[in-house]
Amino acid sequence: MLPVAVDAMGGDRAPDEIVTGARRAAEELGIPVVLVGRPGDLPDTGDLDVIAASEVIAMDAEPGASVRRMKDSSLVRAAEAVRDGKASAMVSAGNTGAAMASALLRMGRIKGISRPAIATPIPVPGHTPTTLLDAGANSECRPAWLVEFARMGAVYARDRFGIGSPRVGLLSIGEEAGKGSPFVKECFKLLSEPEWAAATGAEWIGNVEGRDIMTPDVDVIVTDGFTGNVTLKTLEGAMKSLIGRLLVAIDTDDRTRAAGEALGGALDSMVAELHPDSTGGAMLLGVDGVCVISHGSSSATAIVNAVKIAADLVQASMVEHLTTAAAGRWTPTRAPIHKRTS
Amino acid sequence: MLPVAVDAMGGDRAPDEIVTGARRAAEELGIPVVLVGRPGDLPDTGDLDVIAASEVIAMDAEPGASVRRMKDSSLVRAAEAVRDGKASAMVSAGNTGAAMASALLRMGRIKGISRPAIATPIPVPGHTPTTLLDAGANSECRPAWLVEFARMGAVYARDRFGIGSPRVGLLSIGEEAGKGSPFVKECFKLLSEPEWAAATGAEWIGNVEGRDIMTPDVDVIVTDGFTGNVTLKTLEGAMKSLIGRLLVAIDTDDRTRAAGEALGGALDSMVAELHPDSTGGAMLLGVDGVCVISHGSSSATAIVNAVKIAADLVQASMVEHLTTAAAGRWTPTRAPIHKRTS
Repeated sequence: MLPVAVDAMGGDRAPDEIVTGARRAAEELGIPVVLVGRPGDLPDTGDLDVIAASEVIAMDAEPGASVRRMKDSSLVRAAEAVRDGKASAMVSAGNTGAAMASALLRMGRIKGISRPAIATPIPVPGHTPTTLLDAGANSECRPAWLVEFARMGAVYARDRFGIGSPRVGLLSIGEEAGKGSPFVKECFKLLSEPEWAAATGAEWIGNVEGRDIMTPDVDVIVTDGFTGNVTLKTLEGAMKSLIGRLLVAIDTDDRTRAAGEALGGALDSMVAELHPDSTGGAMLLGVDGVCVISHGSSSATAIVNAVKIAADLVQASMVEHLTTAAAGRWTPTRAPIHKRTS
Repeated sequence: MLPVAVDAMGGDRAPDEIVTGARRAAEELGIPVVLVGRPGDLPDTGDLDVIAASEVIAMDAEPGASVRRMKDSSLVRAAEAVRDGKASAMVSAGNTGAAMASALLRMGRIKGISRPAIATPIPVPGHTPTTLLDAGANSECRPAWLVEFARMGAVYARDRFGIGSPRVGLLSIGEEAGKGSPFVKECFKLLSEPEWAAATGAEWIGNVEGRDIMTPDVDVIVTDGFTGNVTLKTLEGAMKSLIGRLLVAIDTDDRTRAAGEALGGALDSMVAELHPDSTGGAMLLGVDGVCVISHGSSSATAIVNAVKIAADLVQASMVEHLTTAAAGRWTPTRAPIHKRTS
């Protein structure tokens, strides 16, 4: 397998945590990795090769302009490495907009996909995650794009989580077909046509609601990028707030503090299961290559997970499956299909 | 004070839990209450008067048609009691759409308000709740309506939670003014004009994100009814999922189960703080009267809280304040203003 290109300069904790994570992915998991960045700025890179890039796109830079102007940035060079057949995938914890723009401009779109979308797995306790898309790439969408998101989300759920026939729902404000905004009603109509589901092996289950996201009742949820991003950040905020409130409850008195100690490991595994680091970041689906966009605050562990996911999806031939699904032809995956955990 | 009219027939647990809650509100809190419903179907109503209504709008009935056709339903009669000066407010745990339609058709709109909106308080651990509106009355909105929602939300936060100068934000996908859909950008522009904030004593704080909702950083969040409803249900789902996962963590082994026992009271008060029953339901703001819409699953305790909130808002002259704020004139509240808890 070609190496996974890791943007060493992107992320709040770059380059140290990123390089540590990249090295661990190579050493512990045996995944070939190449770093992209300013060689002089990097800590000890061990055995990893480095693709030199002299510029760094800041976390808060304007994405489009930066990518057009900074042709020797680590993000643009990482995307080019995939385009030029020097890397199998790219991983970045940097500026999300700039990562999307780099991937789109350098790798190009898959034929039949109007707009790439961000797919984010939402943890579901005790089950495979629910994939939400678009989680923020397109703040305004046309109804037909959501059918493309549905095709891509189904392929992703199959190749990443081994779900044979992913159940795909449309995020709305009631289960009945007539519920939602005029935009959502139009999406519902288009998604109810059987062709896309047949082309991806998916099962269309109609409208779902916000309260269904963290349940085992749905595998893929499609929505516009505005609603998706609000939903994602609402969930992140709720997790943080609830876990904070739980710590307050534990800190009530000596007895509850002792109980908190006793719960230690069980609580740790709960937090780990729900922590964004565990899902390893979002995918940009619809570009002609694997592009994993990790959280800006990514730790070394988050990078290990992101590299592993990138490698898994390369080996599962996800981009090939997306390409055939976008063209309306379904290629059954060659990866083993596991039973759904629900 | 005129009695609060309680729809005895609305809700998954009607009429028993509703009547129990109404009686408790009268007996324990001394709030005058009148029940509305089918006298023959009610359990012991104690000292409470009953306004007879022969029909019941089902929880899943089509709202508009039901309200137009079932003129002797408990919901329509409750709204009429407010209109006719026989009750000071209405409370229902019934069909939300039908409750909105009854209130709108019988009480009428406040002058200057294009569309009533549902305001829902979201619990913020250790702080006053964040009021979210519109939480579902209008699945598609015009930008100008969000300015009306901002006026109403500010008055509500002041009269209900005693927040002197409520901080009002617009739900978007980034803090900067340029972030969001074209609709949200247009809302941002209108909300940035100083008149509405001056007319309500509010502080406009610009865009906020989903992760800010459960923090003490904002008091009122305005959004369209589609996004608001998705957000609200996403939060409900996240709470349920996390609390379920916490119970699994506690049930790991004998040691963690003992710890869970020790945490008992502290966890109970955490769940109570975050439970929808505690906030007592949503308000329909913009109709010419107080209308509290309680959760369909409301218990007697939820009804006690809803009646108390209705009575508080009647005594705080909220409808009068909404009327002057909608007309662009600010009447400082006569209720005592507490400091924000943050």
